Amino acid sequence: MKFATFDWNGARHVGRVSGDGAAVERFDVAAERVREAGVSALIGNPLPKVTQTIRLAEVSLCAPIPRPRRNIFCVGKNYYDHAHEFANSGFDSSAAQGAVPKAPIIFSKVPESVVGPGAAIRIDPTVSTSVDYEVELAVIVGKAGRNIAKADAMAHVWGYTIVNDVTARDLQGLHSQWLIGKSQDTFCPMGPWAVTTDGLDLADTSVKCWVNGELRQESNTGLLIFDVPTIIAALSNGITLLPGDVIATGTPAGVGLGFKPPKFLRDGDVVRQEIAGIGVLENRVERL
Amino acid sequence: MKFATFDWNGARHVGRVSGDGAAVERFDVAAERVREAGVSALIGNPLPKVTQTIRLAEVSLCAPIPRPRRNIFCVGKNYYDHAHEFANSGFDSSAAQGAVPKAPIIFSKVPESVVGPGAAIRIDPTVSTSVDYEVELAVIVGKAGRNIAKADAMAHVWGYTIVNDVTARDLQGLHSQWLIGKSQDTFCPMGPWAVTTDGLDLADTSVKCWVNGELRQESNTGLLIFDVPTIIAALSNGITLLPGDVIATGTPAGVGLGFKPPKFLRDGDVVRQEIAGIGVLENRVERL
Repeated sequence: MKFATFDWNGARHVGRVSGDGAAVERFDVAAERVREAGVSALIGNPLPKVTQTIRLAEVSLCAPIPRPRRNIFCVGKNYYDHAHEFANSGFDSSAAQGAVPKAPIIFSKVPESVVGPGAAIRIDPTVSTSVDYEVELAVIVGKAGRNIAKADAMAHVWGYTIVNDVTARDLQGLHSQWLIGKSQDTFCPMGPWAVTTDGLDLADTSVKCWVNGELRQESNTGLLIFDVPTIIAALSNGITLLPGDVIATGTPAGVGLGFKPPKFLRDGDVVRQEIAGIGVLENRVERL
Repeated sequence: MKFATFDWNGARHVGRVSGDGAAVERFDVAAERVREAGVSALIGNPLPKVTQTIRLAEVSLCAPIPRPRRNIFCVGKNYYDHAHEFANSGFDSSAAQGAVPKAPIIFSKVPESVVGPGAAIRIDPTVSTSVDYEVELAVIVGKAGRNIAKADAMAHVWGYTIVNDVTARDLQGLHSQWLIGKSQDTFCPMGPWAVTTDGLDLADTSVKCWVNGELRQESNTGLLIFDVPTIIAALSNGITLLPGDVIATGTPAGVGLGFKPPKFLRDGDVVRQEIAGIGVLENRVERL
């Protein structure tokens, strides 16, 4: 099932997206409960009553979780081809540890960096001149847990969405730890909605990213170096994971810094990201 | 002025600590408003009415901000002596960039890692065998801002507190980015209360840490490599800082990994941290 967060008729709502993606069944949930939490308000509760069916074209989609309850967890260098591409780029402060990590590299993006489908990715040339895209499968946690064994990990997953882990490469390199380069305002497009775990096969799901119609990234979640259970086991090792946590699982090769010369994002660029079983997340770049 | 968050009479409160630290004037604020926000609920508002004065010995102090609204920002390697101590320790994934950073290193700790004065720091030997203490001056942001100039930075500071940036050194090294080693449950003791900016002089404030009565860290905020305005300028470069944000400014030399052999924390250890003008934050280590 696909669940969306959307603004309609002057208020925020959540609902279930129809199989053909043309309509959304609006749930009876108070706007205040979903303003920041979005679809994560559904976790652990019976599905609310459907109040009406609305054509998707009539609503304004938001990020499925408009403001996650804490920073978004992100995995770095989690596809072999990207790990090598990044380690050779000159921007990788972790390159001395080798191109391919021995354990998941986990960093975060602030919750306020999240924007929805169609929202602008704002680049500020006084702050960064090397803004890059990264298509990523993101996991939404459904059940709290600490020291979760790999074998139990999938029981803690509620669903998936797409995250564009937009990155200021110059700041990512300059500050050594990646938070500043990753947490810039508008640098976490998320959407178009969330899909429950039955919606895709982690062992074989296509992940793609186009910029202005040019296919830049094309891979498959089956190629993750650390798969989702391994990520959850590593991240919950001493840290209690919570329902509504978002974990972006890493990006494959084909990001802007991998080209010679690099193809960083510019004013007016359109970034289109597609993950099979989820849908399409599209955002335009705007220069401040 | 000193403002504390505390549990008393079955509910959570905030109040003003008396000059001698013996009593607290309880403010008339709804428990729900301060349950997670603590003293940050006071930011930007006139001081609430005092309802009564309670002896400090009768209340249970909480972290001044029991659950910050997003991950705590932390600065790494921000005193010269500690930068060298850490770079030479074998645990520093950023050592290849040189011991002394060229720009502030910023990472985060999850909000749920926060615990109050007197709370246990829990070490789980199945997770880490090298848990370390770090005394740090923490800044509490009072006014939102983005691209804040150094000259304007102090106008965005509301106050200060002490943060013990407890760290699992093995995980900090293993995962390259520091989030997992820094965000372990109970690894962010904070307190004993918050002090407004008039309460200390950033150019000359003593910072100390004892373990079981042995003085381990002794420095001064005047020795920060990147001072508070520089940190705020770097962190707000493209990222909107928000009222209630907490920024831990880094620790001086004398952490456990600096000793040969290292003096990591063990069951029953008592960590006492003191910053002049703020007070004392003390926590006991408990083995799970």
